[in-house]
Amino acid sequence: MSRLSLFAPDNFPLIQPGQPLLPAIVDALTQGGQPLADNDILVLAQKIVSKSENRFIDLGDIVATDEARDYAARCLKEPRFIQAVLNESAAVVRCVPNVFIVQHKLGFTLANAGIDQSNIDPSCINEEHRELALLLPQDPDASAAALRRQIRDTLGVNVGVVISDSFGRPWRLGTTGVCIGCAGVEPIRDQRGQKDLYGRTLQVTMPAIGDEMAAAACLLMGEASEGRPIAVLRGLEVIEADLPATALLRAGNEDLFR
Amino acid sequence: MSRLSLFAPDNFPLIQPGQPLLPAIVDALTQGGQPLADNDILVLAQKIVSKSENRFIDLGDIVATDEARDYAARCLKEPRFIQAVLNESAAVVRCVPNVFIVQHKLGFTLANAGIDQSNIDPSCINEEHRELALLLPQDPDASAAALRRQIRDTLGVNVGVVISDSFGRPWRLGTTGVCIGCAGVEPIRDQRGQKDLYGRTLQVTMPAIGDEMAAAACLLMGEASEGRPIAVLRGLEVIEADLPATALLRAGNEDLFR
Repeated sequence: MSRLSLFAPDNFPLIQPGQPLLPAIVDALTQGGQPLADNDILVLAQKIVSKSENRFIDLGDIVATDEARDYAARCLKEPRFIQAVLNESAAVVRCVPNVFIVQHKLGFTLANAGIDQSNIDPSCINEEHRELALLLPQDPDASAAALRRQIRDTLGVNVGVVISDSFGRPWRLGTTGVCIGCAGVEPIRDQRGQKDLYGRTLQVTMPAIGDEMAAAACLLMGEASEGRPIAVLRGLEVIEADLPATALLRAGNEDLFR
Repeated sequence: MSRLSLFAPDNFPLIQPGQPLLPAIVDALTQGGQPLADNDILVLAQKIVSKSENRFIDLGDIVATDEARDYAARCLKEPRFIQAVLNESAAVVRCVPNVFIVQHKLGFTLANAGIDQSNIDPSCINEEHRELALLLPQDPDASAAALRRQIRDTLGVNVGVVISDSFGRPWRLGTTGVCIGCAGVEPIRDQRGQKDLYGRTLQVTMPAIGDEMAAAACLLMGEASEGRPIAVLRGLEVIEADLPATALLRAGNEDLFR
């Protein structure tokens, strides 16, 4: 029997702007009786990484350009919010009522450049700043690598780290967890050329393991008010790899679905 | 600490055309010391469901139309294979070299209508039939519901059933497990209107739990020659629902990514 276990501390503390994550992670897992062990995969919601890296912006500081106002009128959103999205984006993919999908400067295609206003304490910066929004981490692969190094240096254990976000998908309703940053894991496995059970060569088998790890963790982490922004996957046959999460991106000219 | 465990029997037997699945599932899980229990989610790879339902076709029996030959020339595939795909499809979405993406009659948008030639024993029907391919189950939600009923009637336990397949995605490389049929689970949860941790109303939160369950199971099941076509998820807070997997489909006119 092959086995895999997932666990997530309940009541993880709310992360304040600039607060380092490692002590909170160690405390929550130790108190829950499950300290990190070699070969664990630690999955973190993008939101706590962004909070820890103080990626807050105040929409009150933003001045919308004409371009932002045009898009805002078409998608029925706030012009300064749209300007904040454009500031994080390389291209606009889709703009229709209630939907603004862009290609983020990091390469990901997603709604609103991943800028989020939920689960943000409006008082957590100061009293005057009340239109806060949270950007994606500046370099999620680097964030994952830094945390992995800290864990190795501090705890002496060798773990993989995945930073997850929830993306919508073309053709299918709802969101699933996807990997937007990783270190020490294999986000995608190229099995093309391997043989199947009958010796037939596999043509297209490339499981997006990083995204499946993020999706599995989301089953425990939830997305509303669960208060479980970290989860650990234990028992996976881990193949350490130096591939970044950007290995999961289709090049524009290879994106045959567009 | 919230917990979730997954397990998958190794060396699951190869399913023969028409062979019922339940005895093989019960044997494998019992031998592995993990009989099914109330609230388990049983995930099955589409392939064994299709084999059990004898959804084999022999490409030798198929005559390609002019339309199929045209598409085949454009995507560099075998015309009879393309004809088989067209027979299962409602519309062609994309046809370029090495890529043929369609909308399946069941509503799913995917490559080759999910028709697969890997992990098929060429001798399993008879000696003359050597160009076998396997179609998706005729009605995967009905297949899942029937198996769930059998499990309740035979074993007296109440489980959820998810049938998974591996789909490619626009914008992201690789495939992930998705839910193409289900029974007794909640494939998508509409949390719009709920409050976040600070009382702010969530705008777009609809986790595609069915797809996340399929993706989690795929971490154990693998896609090549692992021989693990079933997995059990245990420990999820299950909300029984009568939604079919087709609840995960975006209506064409709402598919804002197209």
